[in-house]
Amino acid sequence: MSERPQTPLLDRVNVPADLKQFSDAELVRLADEVREETISAVSETGGHLGAGLGVVELTVALHAVFDAPRDKIVWDVSHQCYPHKILTGRRDRIRTLRQKDGLSGFTKRSESPYDPFGAAHSSTSISAALGFAVSRDLGGACDTGHGDAIAVIGDGAMSAGMAFEAMNNAGHLGKRLIVILNDNEMSIAPPTGAMSSYLSRLYAEAPFQDFKAAAKGAVSMLPGPFREGAKRAKEMLKGMTVGGTLFEELGFSYLGPIDGHDLGQLLPVLRTVRQRATGPILIHALTRKGKGYSHAEDAADRGHARAKFDVVTGQQKKAPSNAPSYTKVFARSLIAQAAEDPRICAVTAAMPDGTGLDLFAERYPSRCFDVGIAEQHGVTFSAGLAAGGMRPFCAMYSTFLQRGYDQVVHDVAIQRLPVRFAIDRAGLVGADGATHAGSYDVAYLANLPGFTVMAAADEAELVHMVATAAAHDEGPIAFRYPRGEGSGVEMPERGQPLEIGRGRMIREGGRVAILSFGTRLQEVMQAVEALQARGISPSVADARFAKPLDRELILRLAAEHEALITVEEGAVGGFGSHVAHLLAEEGVFDKGLKYRSMVLPDIFIDQASPADMYAVAGLNAEHIEAKVLLVLGVETVGKRA
Amino acid sequence: MSERPQTPLLDRVNVPADLKQFSDAELVRLADEVREETISAVSETGGHLGAGLGVVELTVALHAVFDAPRDKIVWDVSHQCYPHKILTGRRDRIRTLRQKDGLSGFTKRSESPYDPFGAAHSSTSISAALGFAVSRDLGGACDTGHGDAIAVIGDGAMSAGMAFEAMNNAGHLGKRLIVILNDNEMSIAPPTGAMSSYLSRLYAEAPFQDFKAAAKGAVSMLPGPFREGAKRAKEMLKGMTVGGTLFEELGFSYLGPIDGHDLGQLLPVLRTVRQRATGPILIHALTRKGKGYSHAEDAADRGHARAKFDVVTGQQKKAPSNAPSYTKVFARSLIAQAAEDPRICAVTAAMPDGTGLDLFAERYPSRCFDVGIAEQHGVTFSAGLAAGGMRPFCAMYSTFLQRGYDQVVHDVAIQRLPVRFAIDRAGLVGADGATHAGSYDVAYLANLPGFTVMAAADEAELVHMVATAAAHDEGPIAFRYPRGEGSGVEMPERGQPLEIGRGRMIREGGRVAILSFGTRLQEVMQAVEALQARGISPSVADARFAKPLDRELILRLAAEHEALITVEEGAVGGFGSHVAHLLAEEGVFDKGLKYRSMVLPDIFIDQASPADMYAVAGLNAEHIEAKVLLVLGVETVGKRA
Repeated sequence: MSERPQTPLLDRVNVPADLKQFSDAELVRLADEVREETISAVSETGGHLGAGLGVVELTVALHAVFDAPRDKIVWDVSHQCYPHKILTGRRDRIRTLRQKDGLSGFTKRSESPYDPFGAAHSSTSISAALGFAVSRDLGGACDTGHGDAIAVIGDGAMSAGMAFEAMNNAGHLGKRLIVILNDNEMSIAPPTGAMSSYLSRLYAEAPFQDFKAAAKGAVSMLPGPFREGAKRAKEMLKGMTVGGTLFEELGFSYLGPIDGHDLGQLLPVLRTVRQRATGPILIHALTRKGKGYSHAEDAADRGHARAKFDVVTGQQKKAPSNAPSYTKVFARSLIAQAAEDPRICAVTAAMPDGTGLDLFAERYPSRCFDVGIAEQHGVTFSAGLAAGGMRPFCAMYSTFLQRGYDQVVHDVAIQRLPVRFAIDRAGLVGADGATHAGSYDVAYLANLPGFTVMAAADEAELVHMVATAAAHDEGPIAFRYPRGEGSGVEMPERGQPLEIGRGRMIREGGRVAILSFGTRLQEVMQAVEALQARGISPSVADARFAKPLDRELILRLAAEHEALITVEEGAVGGFGSHVAHLLAEEGVFDKGLKYRSMVLPDIFIDQASPADMYAVAGLNAEHIEAKVLLVLGVETVGKRA
Repeated sequence: MSERPQTPLLDRVNVPADLKQFSDAELVRLADEVREETISAVSETGGHLGAGLGVVELTVALHAVFDAPRDKIVWDVSHQCYPHKILTGRRDRIRTLRQKDGLSGFTKRSESPYDPFGAAHSSTSISAALGFAVSRDLGGACDTGHGDAIAVIGDGAMSAGMAFEAMNNAGHLGKRLIVILNDNEMSIAPPTGAMSSYLSRLYAEAPFQDFKAAAKGAVSMLPGPFREGAKRAKEMLKGMTVGGTLFEELGFSYLGPIDGHDLGQLLPVLRTVRQRATGPILIHALTRKGKGYSHAEDAADRGHARAKFDVVTGQQKKAPSNAPSYTKVFARSLIAQAAEDPRICAVTAAMPDGTGLDLFAERYPSRCFDVGIAEQHGVTFSAGLAAGGMRPFCAMYSTFLQRGYDQVVHDVAIQRLPVRFAIDRAGLVGADGATHAGSYDVAYLANLPGFTVMAAADEAELVHMVATAAAHDEGPIAFRYPRGEGSGVEMPERGQPLEIGRGRMIREGGRVAILSFGTRLQEVMQAVEALQARGISPSVADARFAKPLDRELILRLAAEHEALITVEEGAVGGFGSHVAHLLAEEGVFDKGLKYRSMVLPDIFIDQASPADMYAVAGLNAEHIEAKVLLVLGVETVGKRA
């Protein structure tokens, strides 16, 4: 562990109100201390580093000028919230970030009144802030009172349709609302899309120097009480503005671009806005992700997310892994398929790195499309590609695919278009917690007519499922796989298409059959080992498909065993529910089958290590073992599920 | 039936290629004939009238200039596709629109090669067209070949985030792509949002006269082969342009506004674009919904959707109804609640009329928010309102709420914010067909931790559920109800909050228990009547809640009956799946309960009358009766489910 930084000013801050004691010059020094504290904390916990470093000055300025929690500061995505947490009474726990029972890596309402609206998915902040603004004007009663509503949103997040919808509505309603566009030209991946080019042009047309003079002049020129109403305020702000037409056309006053690392600009601008703004206003601040820490600034991803690291060298302390990650296995398999088939192309929504499509793009740049943070468009664009004769793989995290759900139903499923959905981060994900858990994909896909839904039991199975999806032109197909490394199984030379709707027997046994869907199969096999020591030898099958179900396999297992237990890493409504529906309709329950379905529990599971999360979920080997014993009525001493 | 119109030119058109034979002057007459044919057809079938009348000239111009099906014309939403159907080989079936086994009211891939991408939900066309454009440039093999990709999208649809995402991506990719903005200042409801105001300003700044001259001049001035590349083409087009900066900032060439009813403008502009366009281009055409039929033009909704009508008088031939619609019952109940509670407010996504919130807005204009076609924003805006101390009712159709699914999970459920979801059009909807069926809401909501999910069994129940939702501050709550009229039950004076998670016994019987969720209860009761004639007297319960389940009631029914059958108007994964999970975990199946779950079948059901659709779905009284007989092993003669 590196030595903790010296932070004499920060030591005097417990809540944001404490910032009011400092001069502007002291706030500059305070920002430096917050930056050092952020680097130090993340070096111990790992986490999202670059985004926080990019908004240190902005965070200090916001808390110095506004009065949280009365004023509602809504951080979009909230990867960048660590400095905010340090300044809002959570510094003493900042080294528990993203750990079990520790601080969340995101803002969270249940964690602090200074987090008025939690986030983790992108582009929600303007909608939420507009909700606060309207509540205020309607006299809504909020525990912390009502003041200004402020959304802080990155340029990547701003390119999502949801943000546009919110701007469009806010510009129409005309309520006082402050949107700070934190433009670091870098969401997680380098930016893409026309909006991004537009923002760059705004800066090119008006470098800071011009603005600095204008801002100072405007502020010093302000008349005293500014009561002539919206029009004059808008004109005044316009005088400080160069460009920004696009936002003005949407009904926002535009102010900027300003240097988001210069408190000499941030403080007067925010003070002026606080005093004068009447309607919706957008402040365009340019920042640099990773700012002030060379090992982050110089990295390709600007230090987006880091494992624990050494502060001096920037070296990450990651445990070496033996097996490849599922993400990499997917990418390599897709590249192999694409080498043989020019129709194969791929779509990601601003996650080329997270989905492995960066590797695909290296090999097939013209066949890889990063559509930006735009899952709705990404899904229907994929549907268009399929209609146009391509074989598109739409690679998204389970939880983000929720953003394109209607498009999956309406554009893909109803039209039976062969879009291949590669669903990464299916199931529990560890430190990112409940907002990133992929719990619902099987439930929301497997009841769509004509859909094929698979889950890989291990990384070798994933290779075959990529091949299966590539070969499947009869309709939409999805395959899910978890975050993290595979189980180290032997890898096939090349993927072989699986027979659609066929599971596989793993072992034949008696009395009880365990039907696994996905990677919990490893835990099932561990449970079987323990059960064998007790003289119980379960049959085990890997379903492979939640849809179409392997009816023959399932009905045989039900007929030949006293009990049948399904195991999956998903919520009720998914694989187990489809199995139960089949068993019911076939009249299997009439005869007294002991049927159980092990699924994710009906709670949102807070961040922890994956092992801890599975323990909470009750989906480890010991839980499976206990379930078998319970179902069979085997007496156990002091150990039950 | 009115006399069929005289259509000498149209009679010579079977496929779009037939339009090439006509002079421009004849195309003007052809358009008039298409308009008369459209009015005549809809007068016989009912359907979406206004949108089609607004694009008659545009449709004729597109098919005269481009070569469908090689050129892909993608109609957004496709309410406006009737003239297109008339011109693309489907005129002989145009009087079967929206009827069982007839033409769909929307574009549909399986219906015609001239419908390259079906639609019904809004704002998908640019994404799909971009998919065709990219497929073309990648050499994708499409059955109909690859030519131009053309999206025709209304101004309302353009305000949705998804359209913005697609524009942002298209502007970035720079592929040749044609977007026609059909600006009728009217989606279904009058327009709302800043984008709408922006479009109005574009027109105000540049009335047609200016453009008309510029367009003619530009076309006549064109040099011969135009091979100097993208830059010059763009400049030329810019010369025809006034305004449109917003689209240009997104990387599109902007052309317009032009008069979308003037073939003298449409034809040269489309011809020029076809010859010269290199990258993405947006053509801004102003049209009038309902154009050319005074009974539509003069209506408040400009003839958006109509029952069969008399062409001369415009009078609709709607069967009078005895019971109020569920939509109206919801609206009245909400107004009653709002009278007592100033915290109650309401959010609609561009469907004030469809959701009944127009009535609410009349009484409480400052508490009603039409956010535009923006379900993602609408849901999170509601979450912000709840966080700000309001009691928001977010009223959406089941199928459209799919657009905001991630926001329901991430912003509402995870934060346990008490947003009230009023889910209209739950279940099968009749003439709008599969794209509008509300089949999945229970499945995608009831597995979210902390959610309360209700379904009204009749309109009186709906009144109580509105009251229940209003009073429920402990987390999110949803209540679903179908399209159409109630069953005519006696209405309560005022809504009374129901006990959360409690069903109600409808009748005590023996042997078999039927547990109904939602309005199929009426069919259940009819089935019971028929069964009683056979000496079988089922118990019947109304579950009211899919979450939390009434465990006590369900386990009692299971314990006291030989068989238990759940009935719901939703897909697998919903109510029945939650009941099955409970029964499994409680070991009820071990003892041999005859359990069945009646749900929507695993097919997309084409448009038909509701009665016909229920017959296909197998959810009518006769099916319920047959299921009971089958489960109990009662011999029937020639009649089984």
